Amino acid sequence: MKALVYRGKRTVGVENVPDARIESPTDVLVRVTTTNICGSDLHMYEGRTNVEKGKVLGHENLGQVLEVGSAVVRIKPGDWVCLPFNIACGFCRNCERGLTGFCLTVNPGFAGGAYGYASMGPYPGGQAELLRVPFGDFNCLRLPPDAAERQKDYVMLADIWPAGYHATELAHVRPGESVAVFGAGPVGLMAAYSAALKGASTVYVVDHQSDRLRLAEAVGAVPVDPGQADPVEQLLMATGGNGVDKACECVGWQAHDPAGNEQPALALNNAVQAVRATGEIGVVGDFVPDDPAPHDELAAHGQVAFDIGTFYQKGLSMGSGQCNVKAYNRYLRDLIAAGVAEPGFLVSHELPLDDAASAYRHFDERDTGWTKVVLHP
Amino acid sequence: MKALVYRGKRTVGVENVPDARIESPTDVLVRVTTTNICGSDLHMYEGRTNVEKGKVLGHENLGQVLEVGSAVVRIKPGDWVCLPFNIACGFCRNCERGLTGFCLTVNPGFAGGAYGYASMGPYPGGQAELLRVPFGDFNCLRLPPDAAERQKDYVMLADIWPAGYHATELAHVRPGESVAVFGAGPVGLMAAYSAALKGASTVYVVDHQSDRLRLAEAVGAVPVDPGQADPVEQLLMATGGNGVDKACECVGWQAHDPAGNEQPALALNNAVQAVRATGEIGVVGDFVPDDPAPHDELAAHGQVAFDIGTFYQKGLSMGSGQCNVKAYNRYLRDLIAAGVAEPGFLVSHELPLDDAASAYRHFDERDTGWTKVVLHP
Amino acid sequence: MKALVYRGKRTVGVENVPDARIESPTDVLVRVTTTNICGSDLHMYEGRTNVEKGKVLGHENLGQVLEVGSAVVRIKPGDWVCLPFNIACGFCRNCERGLTGFCLTVNPGFAGGAYGYASMGPYPGGQAELLRVPFGDFNCLRLPPDAAERQKDYVMLADIWPAGYHATELAHVRPGESVAVFGAGPVGLMAAYSAALKGASTVYVVDHQSDRLRLAEAVGAVPVDPGQADPVEQLLMATGGNGVDKACECVGWQAHDPAGNEQPALALNNAVQAVRATGEIGVVGDFVPDDPAPHDELAAHGQVAFDIGTFYQKGLSMGSGQCNVKAYNRYLRDLIAAGVAEPGFLVSHELPLDDAASAYRHFDERDTGWTKVVLHP
Amino acid sequence: MKALVYRGKRTVGVENVPDARIESPTDVLVRVTTTNICGSDLHMYEGRTNVEKGKVLGHENLGQVLEVGSAVVRIKPGDWVCLPFNIACGFCRNCERGLTGFCLTVNPGFAGGAYGYASMGPYPGGQAELLRVPFGDFNCLRLPPDAAERQKDYVMLADIWPAGYHATELAHVRPGESVAVFGAGPVGLMAAYSAALKGASTVYVVDHQSDRLRLAEAVGAVPVDPGQADPVEQLLMATGGNGVDKACECVGWQAHDPAGNEQPALALNNAVQAVRATGEIGVVGDFVPDDPAPHDELAAHGQVAFDIGTFYQKGLSMGSGQCNVKAYNRYLRDLIAAGVAEPGFLVSHELPLDDAASAYRHFDERDTGWTKVVLHP
Repeated sequence: MKALVYRGKRTVGVENVPDARIESPTDVLVRVTTTNICGSDLHMYEGRTNVEKGKVLGHENLGQVLEVGSAVVRIKPGDWVCLPFNIACGFCRNCERGLTGFCLTVNPGFAGGAYGYASMGPYPGGQAELLRVPFGDFNCLRLPPDAAERQKDYVMLADIWPAGYHATELAHVRPGESVAVFGAGPVGLMAAYSAALKGASTVYVVDHQSDRLRLAEAVGAVPVDPGQADPVEQLLMATGGNGVDKACECVGWQAHDPAGNEQPALALNNAVQAVRATGEIGVVGDFVPDDPAPHDELAAHGQVAFDIGTFYQKGLSMGSGQCNVKAYNRYLRDLIAAGVAEPGFLVSHELPLDDAASAYRHFDERDTGWTKVVLHP
Repeated sequence: MKALVYRGKRTVGVENVPDARIESPTDVLVRVTTTNICGSDLHMYEGRTNVEKGKVLGHENLGQVLEVGSAVVRIKPGDWVCLPFNIACGFCRNCERGLTGFCLTVNPGFAGGAYGYASMGPYPGGQAELLRVPFGDFNCLRLPPDAAERQKDYVMLADIWPAGYHATELAHVRPGESVAVFGAGPVGLMAAYSAALKGASTVYVVDHQSDRLRLAEAVGAVPVDPGQADPVEQLLMATGGNGVDKACECVGWQAHDPAGNEQPALALNNAVQAVRATGEIGVVGDFVPDDPAPHDELAAHGQVAFDIGTFYQKGLSMGSGQCNVKAYNRYLRDLIAAGVAEPGFLVSHELPLDDAASAYRHFDERDTGWTKVVLHP
Repeated sequence: MKALVYRGKRTVGVENVPDARIESPTDVLVRVTTTNICGSDLHMYEGRTNVEKGKVLGHENLGQVLEVGSAVVRIKPGDWVCLPFNIACGFCRNCERGLTGFCLTVNPGFAGGAYGYASMGPYPGGQAELLRVPFGDFNCLRLPPDAAERQKDYVMLADIWPAGYHATELAHVRPGESVAVFGAGPVGLMAAYSAALKGASTVYVVDHQSDRLRLAEAVGAVPVDPGQADPVEQLLMATGGNGVDKACECVGWQAHDPAGNEQPALALNNAVQAVRATGEIGVVGDFVPDDPAPHDELAAHGQVAFDIGTFYQKGLSMGSGQCNVKAYNRYLRDLIAAGVAEPGFLVSHELPLDDAASAYRHFDERDTGWTKVVLHP
Repeated sequence: MKALVYRGKRTVGVENVPDARIESPTDVLVRVTTTNICGSDLHMYEGRTNVEKGKVLGHENLGQVLEVGSAVVRIKPGDWVCLPFNIACGFCRNCERGLTGFCLTVNPGFAGGAYGYASMGPYPGGQAELLRVPFGDFNCLRLPPDAAERQKDYVMLADIWPAGYHATELAHVRPGESVAVFGAGPVGLMAAYSAALKGASTVYVVDHQSDRLRLAEAVGAVPVDPGQADPVEQLLMATGGNGVDKACECVGWQAHDPAGNEQPALALNNAVQAVRATGEIGVVGDFVPDDPAPHDELAAHGQVAFDIGTFYQKGLSMGSGQCNVKAYNRYLRDLIAAGVAEPGFLVSHELPLDDAASAYRHFDERDTGWTKVVLHP
């Protein structure tokens, strides 16, 4: 089968690899029809991880079931399914509490597994024609009859929409609250979209890039451009000096200041400064325990200079980590099916799998307008 | 009246000051019969804050009502009451949600007020014969008929027990969970006591001082001495390599390593390393936005080198801040009244107010056995 | 001052009564500019309560502060305020936990007080020129600068919007869920509006009256007419036989079957039958412990024949009771101020206070189009 | 193999039946070493259900794994395991949210399955030498090394302890609260035990039988004997007229008044009357949608005369239904393993399987001292 393979720093290509197949009685085999490039794929692409050469990438996958293992009872060949990026067993201590992003079974010695991702287990990704889905009855989200026609919306359930939604859950966003989202990449935009959907009164989105801020405005958010003035000052001014009720950190350790310098704690500390006393922060921007290409000494040890003094004095709380997709995907799917949500608005490019390498290059260079790329194998 | 007055770094004394009195129709005037020295009083004593000279200290107060203002309807002269260390209005945005530690009314420009404390408003403390209680109907906790005889237990409701309990609430400790408490000072001991009361399966308490560890054992906790081996290693070993379910940080920015060097992030990062993936951390150890006597450059800006990489990868969350005493004090009072809890076990010394200055000195020097001092004006 | 006075079953009139005035140092005196007739006012109007003759009615009130008592610190003359229908002290055991609908202070011997209402304390209502607001700092919700122009929206914060919202809170409605609302009176419509605002995937509204169902459609809900077919059957069919995730009972003990017979448990049991296993039900329709004009023997004792067998077998839960308005009104106010919500769409008639008596008659007879009446004293 | 078989009303016997065996690749086969008789087994024994003749009974099972199916990865032969009485798939809409008592897969057309129980699917029970466990990786709770020696404690994890604990969860019992438990059968005693473990201030237990009340006292509860005075009056008097904070209904539809008449709503309505305004009630006593041997007309339709008027006026909430054992059993197991809990205190009789028929008879007749029977096949 054809698949997008990682070959080294900033080198990927579509190659022939052995077909994915049923390996265990609980497996499901899916013919992938839609698969996204995720911002986190760029961490690997840029050589900021320890991913092995030869890895098939791709963890945002949707397709049709080809075959099921002998122990599979719920999923049937022909079903349209969207696959959470997390691979999870369904029966470990974390999975049984719904914390499927931290499965203790599928990636021994580590809490969490995923398709096509550094440190997340030996699982090939779905930027390929076929995908093996372990523990298929647990991991497949069945899609409604309009799945084939609305793949652009439903594929957002694999990662990016739940990830943004997760930020709002970690921050416990409630109707009527004001929310600041740091970062208007795909996850940040989905966090803003989710906050509005939950009935936030005002959603602010902070980002340097004007094309992204325009998308934020399109979902009803108020754009905040750090190039104009300190974003914390802007947010305090907009809220009568009180700060916002909640914040979502959707940037992570590759945060940059307006001058282009990497400052890993920038968005996180801005969130701390911008929320009101007793506020809450959801952190879904990626942070890593050790960075092979650190920009400062703290980063080399997975640390940042964190504003704990303000955090404590204001009585803040924060939650973090990869999204447990299965905690949300049924409900978000129902919002798409009911016509309430259309997260596919995010997609800027739909391309054949063969164009994947050039798509990685454009996306990595943050070329204007390359918001979200969907590949069709 | 006589009161304990701050005169400068490591200088306090009992002096005559003007009597406390009713100043507003919602005030209550209390004759203080029991008032504690708190570990946080030592921050002021040691000159680590900006507290003004002449301030009457003391925020853990219990006594009998002498007089009430004309608008007070619930509290009557003669009532025995315990006063939360937080002063709160009861009607601001934070108070009405129960976040009385962050009242927006009583200390304009700041979220939160307290008796006798740096930055917490113009309120004299209760290490004195009389105490003015603003918004008395809201701030007084009425005590049951055995109050006079059990002051040592009930005075723990002013701060120290709710503060320890708050750590377990911020960490969402649930029955059957394992909990690590960092710090076996009064707050840490009360956190351990609270975790056991909530049905934790195993409570570990980490501290250097052997006398404190013995108290931890007395409440059923497993002592962990960092002088023996790295406490994170000890906790991982005790939990089969998984880590504890929850952690309580009850040390704060004056954390010391075994060699006696101040390392502000030590207990916090140990908590991050010692909890299991998806764990939660309650931070009630004190951190400050700016430290007039910092031990490193980060501390000068209210920052610490925080293990965000591990925090994020394990999907952790943490809550922080001063305790909202009123959120718990009725229920903890009922536990004392029902004979289920006796938090007064913590008290090592009961002294007259006149001995306050020497008590500060002993407590500050962490003299063996000086766990908790109660003063009787 | 002029005020609408209850004179006996189906007899009300606007009369001159003594001016409301400051009686306690914590009072606030409000010049009422907008006051609604509530569906629950009709319980009194119809003689289904023990309300005393001479009572000034009206518990949904908005106006401008004329004068404040000597102990009032937050509210100032000239402030535009909306008053929760509940009168609450702010410092009792229930109020301090946010359960202001069950204040233990303002109506001794009963949990809860209100303006102008049977059994809810000696407080005159606001269908009058002036209103005395006890514990004014706690009970007044300050409105933003556009208050005078948007009274029709903001007055909905006094009761009807929070009441409908409360139904969705009691049922723990979450994004993506399907919700059935029983009753399309003002509260039911506000429940449907709130469920949509919270991101429900599909909201169904069940009611006999076609004009009300049209309003439900206008807020995006799916109308269900029991005159067409059994509403439980319709809901099961619409949800693939599973039932809805959540239900809101917004009818209460005056529920009628299509033939017009009062069946107090009808909407409640329909909710039990229509939700899926593990579903949750919010009950805000009024039920009373004793009914002076009961339609059956159970009702005389405040009982209904409840489908407990199905309730238990499906593992359902339900919450009930009057809304704690202060739990929500700040946040709902912010939604109006931000332009996200316009609950005033509900208003069908704006009339001078002098027309109150005829408005009661039309509203009581459920005349077509009389959805919600707003009076301007 | 030998197994206890239902033969008709009040007729059971130990017989030879075909051996249980692996039927599906996800099955686990267990050699049962300890299996309890549950109070709900008596519903079948007494002919109050539609259970088919020939059914092997027994849903509280513990034993050692003999064999595992080809798709089982977590459980190994030789493991000591305790089996939740609920059989659940782990991947349906309810299971993935932890609501394993309402699995939609294992018992098509019904929400929930169990071993050896009426209406709960075609699964033989474990009062037998061997037990087939479907979806074994999900349903088996592994036990620690002391399992063999402490079977009497660990077997309580199958149903009875989690069931009692569930009542306290449904009522959201929190530290410091007062709790009334209605019914001192095994579930009620376990509810009282759980409430105390969670830090309730005072636990009251209401029951007619003096031997059961003595057991309640042994776990620290205050006994309330309805034979002495109306239990609601006793509870109101004990709480200063306010009522208890929370209540657990552990009786169900076979409630009897002191005169011995079945009054299905008795305990439920007593709970409504005895809790304070804003209280919460957990209902785990069994109620059924249709009763083949009803004592009144309402019961025939699965209804009771419910005190909805008081329920609503006090703003109460209640949750109900069978326990989701997997939501709690890991944590309760850890409490046993840590030595904090010893729920086996409940066991009055340990007997060989061959004595099962006579044990059913004694237990059904509520013979003094027959609190809880454990069988060893």
